[in-house]
Formats: sequence, structure tokens, C-alpha cells
Amino acid sequence: MLFTKALILGIGLIGSSLARNLKEKNIVQTLAVYDKNKENLDKSKKLALADIYTDNIKEGVEDADIIIFATPVCSFGELAKEVAKYVKAGTIISDVGSVKQYSLQEIEKYLNKEKKVIVVGGHPVAGTEKSGPENGFSSLFKGRWCILTPDENSTPEAIAKLTEMWEECGMKVDTMDMAHHDKVMAAVSHLPQLIAYSIVGTVADLEGYEHKEIIKYSAGGFRDFTRIAGSDPTMWRDIFLTNKQTVLELIQRFIEDLIALERNIRWDEGDKMFDLFKRTQKIRKDVIEAKQDQPEHEKRIMEEMQK
Amino acid sequence: MLFTKALILGIGLIGSSLARNLKEKNIVQTLAVYDKNKENLDKSKKLALADIYTDNIKEGVEDADIIIFATPVCSFGELAKEVAKYVKAGTIISDVGSVKQYSLQEIEKYLNKEKKVIVVGGHPVAGTEKSGPENGFSSLFKGRWCILTPDENSTPEAIAKLTEMWEECGMKVDTMDMAHHDKVMAAVSHLPQLIAYSIVGTVADLEGYEHKEIIKYSAGGFRDFTRIAGSDPTMWRDIFLTNKQTVLELIQRFIEDLIALERNIRWDEGDKMFDLFKRTQKIRKDVIEAKQDQPEHEKRIMEEMQK
Repeated sequence: MLFTKALILGIGLIGSSLARNLKEKNIVQTLAVYDKNKENLDKSKKLALADIYTDNIKEGVEDADIIIFATPVCSFGELAKEVAKYVKAGTIISDVGSVKQYSLQEIEKYLNKEKKVIVVGGHPVAGTEKSGPENGFSSLFKGRWCILTPDENSTPEAIAKLTEMWEECGMKVDTMDMAHHDKVMAAVSHLPQLIAYSIVGTVADLEGYEHKEIIKYSAGGFRDFTRIAGSDPTMWRDIFLTNKQTVLELIQRFIEDLIALERNIRWDEGDKMFDLFKRTQKIRKDVIEAKQDQPEHEKRIMEEMQK
Repeated sequence: MLFTKALILGIGLIGSSLARNLKEKNIVQTLAVYDKNKENLDKSKKLALADIYTDNIKEGVEDADIIIFATPVCSFGELAKEVAKYVKAGTIISDVGSVKQYSLQEIEKYLNKEKKVIVVGGHPVAGTEKSGPENGFSSLFKGRWCILTPDENSTPEAIAKLTEMWEECGMKVDTMDMAHHDKVMAAVSHLPQLIAYSIVGTVADLEGYEHKEIIKYSAGGFRDFTRIAGSDPTMWRDIFLTNKQTVLELIQRFIEDLIALERNIRWDEGDKMFDLFKRTQKIRKDVIEAKQDQPEHEKRIMEEMQK
């Protein structure tokens, strides 16, 4: 057993998928899950995801040797304040947040003023557009990357334990500077997500179209964006607000490039468009070669999602 | 048998998927495929997709009672000119193009000055990001919509035959005014595709990032956009150039909405973002309820793509 008592704060898609792994693979002796949402706790209980289900921070935190924040990022500060009251010295504190500078700053500020606990940021880069404990599944993490972002207060032992935990979940583990993490994620995740939300809004709002028609023919491409834009609103709002500067900069870049493309269309510059489309096709090939989009894996995820 | 001799012009993803259906379901007696690309013809021959494989328009057109344009839209005019030389009176002319006003205008102008043939525009709204005859498969059309855009020269008989043909392929068939078709497709297909190309270009061009890193963590969301942006460059260039005005208008709408969202982030207007994200989540539900995104169907497509 890697841990005696683990506490997962927030039992949503990621929290519940982690819970499944911790139990199935005997990574912890006792697993506690905390959620302020009664419905999520009830669902988790029905699914037998843990040993302790609570909306009482004290009950969850007491005697835990690892605590993982898995709530939307903006709630980290408030939760950390509460956790600080009951946490024992030496406990490993980690998280699954998609923005690392903000979330770790909040944790350190409210929970670790006296350097009593050991903080190691974590971000398992995996997910589906669904949310809630009923939509998690244990193979969600398989073959994906988990990024740890240790700082000067992280210990090698804690990093090793977290590495082992995520590897047991099927992940490949990498470490990264947290500022760099936030920059990379803004590009590969936050900007694409924002664009998906934005375009679904635009298309839905067009006048002179019937909503029914848009939905009916959504297989033309729109559908794929609705899938992405079906993701958890609270989680994403928090990500955009807490990785603000980088996201804002990337939006500007994107708009510049889109306007250049708009100009290509207006002036019939087919060659320039063709060159870009050839480049993006090559990037697609790189993604496939890096095994980051495998039909085999997607199929498995879809099977899980159908259950 | 619905037709005696069918000719498919262009044996790419859609052309070859249609060919598979026409043969497997005994919809035609003789199937000819024309392509100016020798490689595509050779691949089709190997796959036994047709009875006649030719890069000679005359050979393909002679005695055909149905001809289907399945090349990129900008080639329609030139091809129509050639087809006109050999086509017999009464032949049904249709196509699979994603832009209907431009393509039918080209066909009518070059091929049907004397109203000798019967033109009925068609658009099977189906596809994957792959191209070429080796990537087609017969169940591609199953459960999807095919839009026919008849005009004053289309006959009820021709419309009925095309309807039957696409229904045999597994499609649901709808008719629509061609201007309205181009407007709806700009929203549900052309704009989303353009945005995907654009964002993949933006992210790939960012300085201060390693290309490898972007690819490695692409499962964060970027990956889904690369899938869309891996689509055929020629086909899409032609679509943007020939549905220009509508696409340009929608780009402007999209940029406006994106800038509004950018402003929400800058001024910490989390509530406004949350409202939009809730709305897009609802639209996602509508798409699923309309059965336009079914894991079962996607799974089948992925299985076909793996073969």
C-alpha cells in the first residue's frame, strides 16, 4: 500500500476516476472522498467508490497521509483554509488542476504557511466532456501523460510516491516547471476549449437559421465542437480566469491568424490556404505518430462512456 | 437495378464510399470511375471498386444514365465542359459537393446549356478526415442526412431515383433550396472546419514552445482539432473559395463573439462565461438527442478506419 488514508476533495469525473484506481489497485488502505454536493456523495456511495463519504472537511482530513484537490481551481483557496485546520504534519498535498501557478499558490498560501505539509502539483492530462462521479472510469488515465510540477518545498519521496500512484493508474509521468506547464496547457488545451465554446455560441445564435436545422446537420463538423463545448462550465470558467494572461495572449494570436485566413478567402488566395492546410495535415500525422490519437484507445473510452 | 451505367467522377473518400454501395447493393449494372490521378485509379482497381477505371472522360461518360461529380468543387466547370461532349440526352447529373450554388451553376453553365440532361444537386453530409479511395467504406453514409437541392430543371423521376440511391446507401434524404443549403452548411460545417485549420496553425506557430511538447500533450484538446484539420486541403480550399460571402460573414460573427469572451476573461466576468458554457452544454444535449453523435456509430466508423 502506497498510502494509509487518502482524501480526494471533489468527486467529479477526474476525482472519481482516480478513486476507482486507488481502490481497484489497492493503492490506499482507506479512501475518503469529500464533496460539498450531497448528490455527488450519494452517487459515489452507490458506486462504492470509497470507504468514507463526507461533506465534513475534518472527517476527511484527519489522519490522511495524502490529500488530492480535485475541485474546480477557484475553490482551492477556500478549501485549503479548511484543510489547514486539521491536516497532520508531513501529509502530501497534491491536485489535479489544469492551471498550476494559481492553484499551488492558493494551496501554499492558505495551507502551508508553516511548511508543515509537502506540496507537489499534479495534472493528469486526460478527460472526457462528461462530468460527475457516474461518468468516471478507471481506464481514463491509461496511456496519457501526468505532469507533476514540484517546487522547492516538494521532497523527492513525495514526488516518487505520486509518480508511483499515477503510474499505477496507467499514466506516463513527466515533471515540468509550473509556469511552463501553464503556457503549454494554454496552447494545447485552454485555447482550443475556449474556441469550441465560442463557436458553438456563435452558431447557436445566428439569426435566420432554425435551431433544429443546425442540430440536424451537426454531423457536418459542428457536432465535434459541441462535444468539446459540453464540458463542465464551472471547471472551465475557473481555468480561463486563473490562467488569464496566457490565455488572453493566445486569443490575440489566434484572432490575428484567423483574420489572415479571412483575407486569403476574400482575395482568392487559394495557394496560401492550401499551404496552411497541408501544414496542419502534417501536424495531424505527428499527433498520430506520437500515439496521442489512437482509434483503439478512443474505442475503449467510448465503450466505457456507453456503460 | 436503378441504373444501367453509372459514372463517378473522382474516386476519393466520398466517391469510393458511394462506389462500394453501388456495387455491394446492386444499384447499378455497370459502374465506371474516372480520376485524372493514376494512383487513385490503381488503388480503386486493386480494391475492385468498379467495373471500368479510366482517366478518359469519353470512356466514362458514354452510355452513362447517371453521372456523379465527386471531385473538389473548383474542378466542376472544367469537367462539365468535357462531360458535355459525350453525354447522352436524359442522363441524370448529380454531385456530392459541399457548396451547392457554385457547383450547380458550373454544371448548368458548361454541361446543360441546351437543357439536354437532368441536373439534381446532392450533398451526402458524411465524411471522415481521411481522403483517398482506400479510406472509403460502405457504411460511411449510414444514418446520416443527404440533402438534395433540385431546381426548376430537375424532374420528379430523377429526384426519386437519387433519393432511392442514397436511401439504399443508408441515408435519410431531405430536399432544400440551394442558397439555404449553402447558408446552413457554412454554419455547421465550413466555419467549424476553418476555425480548426486556423487554431492548429496558430498553436503550431507559437514561438517559445517545443513542437514535440505540443504534440506530446495534444490529448489536452488540441488533438481533436488536428483531427478535423487533417482533412483534404484541396477540397476545403475549394469550399471556402466558392462559399465565400457566407463564410466571410460568419467569420466576422465568430470574431465578435470571441472578442466578447476575451473581454469576459480580462474583466473577470465569470458569470457571463458560465452562462455561455451552460448554453453550449444544452446544445450538446440537443445534438445527442437528435442522434447526431452516437458512440455506437462512432465506434463503427473507428473500426472501419482501423482496417
